[in-house]
Amino acid sequence: MKALVFRGPGKFEWVEKDKPTIQNPTDAIIKITKTTICGTDLHILGGDVPAVTDGRTLGHEGVGIVEGVGSGVNNFKPGDRVLISCVTSCGRCDYCKKAMYAHCEDGGWILGHLIDGTQAEYVRIPYADTSLYHIPPGTDEEALVMLSDIFPTSLEIGVINGEVQPGDVVAIVGAGPVGMASLLTAQLYSPAEIIMVDLDDYRLEMSKKFGATKTVNSSKGNAVEQVMELTDGKGVDVAIEAVGFPVTFDICQQILKPGGRLANVGVHGKPVDLHLEQLWIRNVKITTGLVSTSTTPMLIKTVQSGKIKPQQLVTHRFPLDQIMQAYEVFRNAAKEKAMKVILYND
Amino acid sequence: MKALVFRGPGKFEWVEKDKPTIQNPTDAIIKITKTTICGTDLHILGGDVPAVTDGRTLGHEGVGIVEGVGSGVNNFKPGDRVLISCVTSCGRCDYCKKAMYAHCEDGGWILGHLIDGTQAEYVRIPYADTSLYHIPPGTDEEALVMLSDIFPTSLEIGVINGEVQPGDVVAIVGAGPVGMASLLTAQLYSPAEIIMVDLDDYRLEMSKKFGATKTVNSSKGNAVEQVMELTDGKGVDVAIEAVGFPVTFDICQQILKPGGRLANVGVHGKPVDLHLEQLWIRNVKITTGLVSTSTTPMLIKTVQSGKIKPQQLVTHRFPLDQIMQAYEVFRNAAKEKAMKVILYND
Repeated sequence: MKALVFRGPGKFEWVEKDKPTIQNPTDAIIKITKTTICGTDLHILGGDVPAVTDGRTLGHEGVGIVEGVGSGVNNFKPGDRVLISCVTSCGRCDYCKKAMYAHCEDGGWILGHLIDGTQAEYVRIPYADTSLYHIPPGTDEEALVMLSDIFPTSLEIGVINGEVQPGDVVAIVGAGPVGMASLLTAQLYSPAEIIMVDLDDYRLEMSKKFGATKTVNSSKGNAVEQVMELTDGKGVDVAIEAVGFPVTFDICQQILKPGGRLANVGVHGKPVDLHLEQLWIRNVKITTGLVSTSTTPMLIKTVQSGKIKPQQLVTHRFPLDQIMQAYEVFRNAAKEKAMKVILYND
Repeated sequence: MKALVFRGPGKFEWVEKDKPTIQNPTDAIIKITKTTICGTDLHILGGDVPAVTDGRTLGHEGVGIVEGVGSGVNNFKPGDRVLISCVTSCGRCDYCKKAMYAHCEDGGWILGHLIDGTQAEYVRIPYADTSLYHIPPGTDEEALVMLSDIFPTSLEIGVINGEVQPGDVVAIVGAGPVGMASLLTAQLYSPAEIIMVDLDDYRLEMSKKFGATKTVNSSKGNAVEQVMELTDGKGVDVAIEAVGFPVTFDICQQILKPGGRLANVGVHGKPVDLHLEQLWIRNVKITTGLVSTSTTPMLIKTVQSGKIKPQQLVTHRFPLDQIMQAYEVFRNAAKEKAMKVILYND
């Protein structure tokens, strides 16, 4: 089969590779029909994730068809159409018992990281019964690819950790794919205002179509001052950090009103200054996290009912064997006006 | 009447002063029968709270007897014995509607800060109906003085923000009065272990009597390593920061297990390094806050039922007119083996 493999920082190849096989009774082998590229894949290519070794197949998102299952798999059979969760969960450890699948003692985020991933024609999924979801007939599969990672991440780590409530004023810092998915999922909880903050006017315009009520271009004046002005000097109830730099985290901590929540979704490579000398008295909450995908069943139902339309984020489509070109587009997302790209193998 | 007044950084005096009078219909005048000294009062004396101006009567804790009430006060009458909350709440603003009295738009922490406080023979309490509590007959009044500030602070900002649950492993960094009150109130939620961290062996011994299951002396080896060793390398579910220095905050962020909560109670004067490059993936929650005293009614009931005994923290007692000596003892608390001091005016 063909797969996209990591060859060390900055290098990757679309190569011929052995088709995966069942290794444990709880495994399933899935033929990938659609996959996508995540910002995390770019971090891996940049060499920021040293646990990823030479030869590893990348990718942790996708939908497909069950090709084969181990003797211990009870919920899936060959031919079933499935959504692959980016997080593998054994379902038995202390963390899984608390629905913190991100920290599963024999799983978590391992696909395209510690084991071969989904940017290939076939993938082996451990603990299939607790790591795959049936695709309801008639559901848009491009929408479901967005449910492997980016939508549950935005919902759980951004919107739910940030405790978005009806009537809240929410700021989302970063209008990339994760910020946009936060914008779409935040609306499930009916906030009064969603202020989108980014450097790029095109993305800010796009965010208005997706439901942002106000936008702030942080390249045109001080972002904190602009947000404070838009909120009559009061600040926001929830700030969602969807970038991963000290400067964007800093905007978030400065725009919180008393009682505000800062939900960090961005992947950070450096420490940040936390202004406890100001925040100690302000009753704020700061959260971090890797997605557990505990909301996947709920998200499948919201997609089915049309309450959210994750496929809105798909801007580009490529056949799977053109994945190298797809990476080029995704890597230059702002210039290419790209949000999410779909690789299809139907 | 006599009152302890601030005279600029480092200076205070026990002086003759006019007795307070009703200024608004919602005011009450209280004759203080017991008050105490808070770490915050030492911060004020150190010049750390510039909003406190020359001549201000200090103190925000106490119990007393209602001397007089304004025409708009309905719940209290002269002769009633009352507990004074450190936080004044109007009961009407957006924050009060959410039980965030700390951020009341016409109140919050103003006693001994923006208006004259409780370290005096009499005090004026604004919004008496929503800022005072009736003392149930027969209740230990020394216990109730601890309910003006330190116990609700420890419970709300430490234990409840930290979401202490049955079976949790909790670390409390700092075995001063707030740390000890966190230790006592944490036990309302039946954690499995409470690890107390401090530099002082005497305080650590005292914490064992109050229910700490393990202690770590951070002057004898690396505190983080000691806590990790005591938890089989797993870390803690909850870390309560009860000091207010970058180094103690740092211990807390390093000992959290995935899914852990860091409840900051300490008053900080400087920013801290937040290690987001490690924490972004660990699903942690960091909270800060000034107490709202929304738990005061609950605490009064736990005192009445004997579930907690806040008077255990009282180590020294002085008549109110010896308050200058009491400050000396409290200022040298470690040397004097002092925890909380009571000033009585019965």
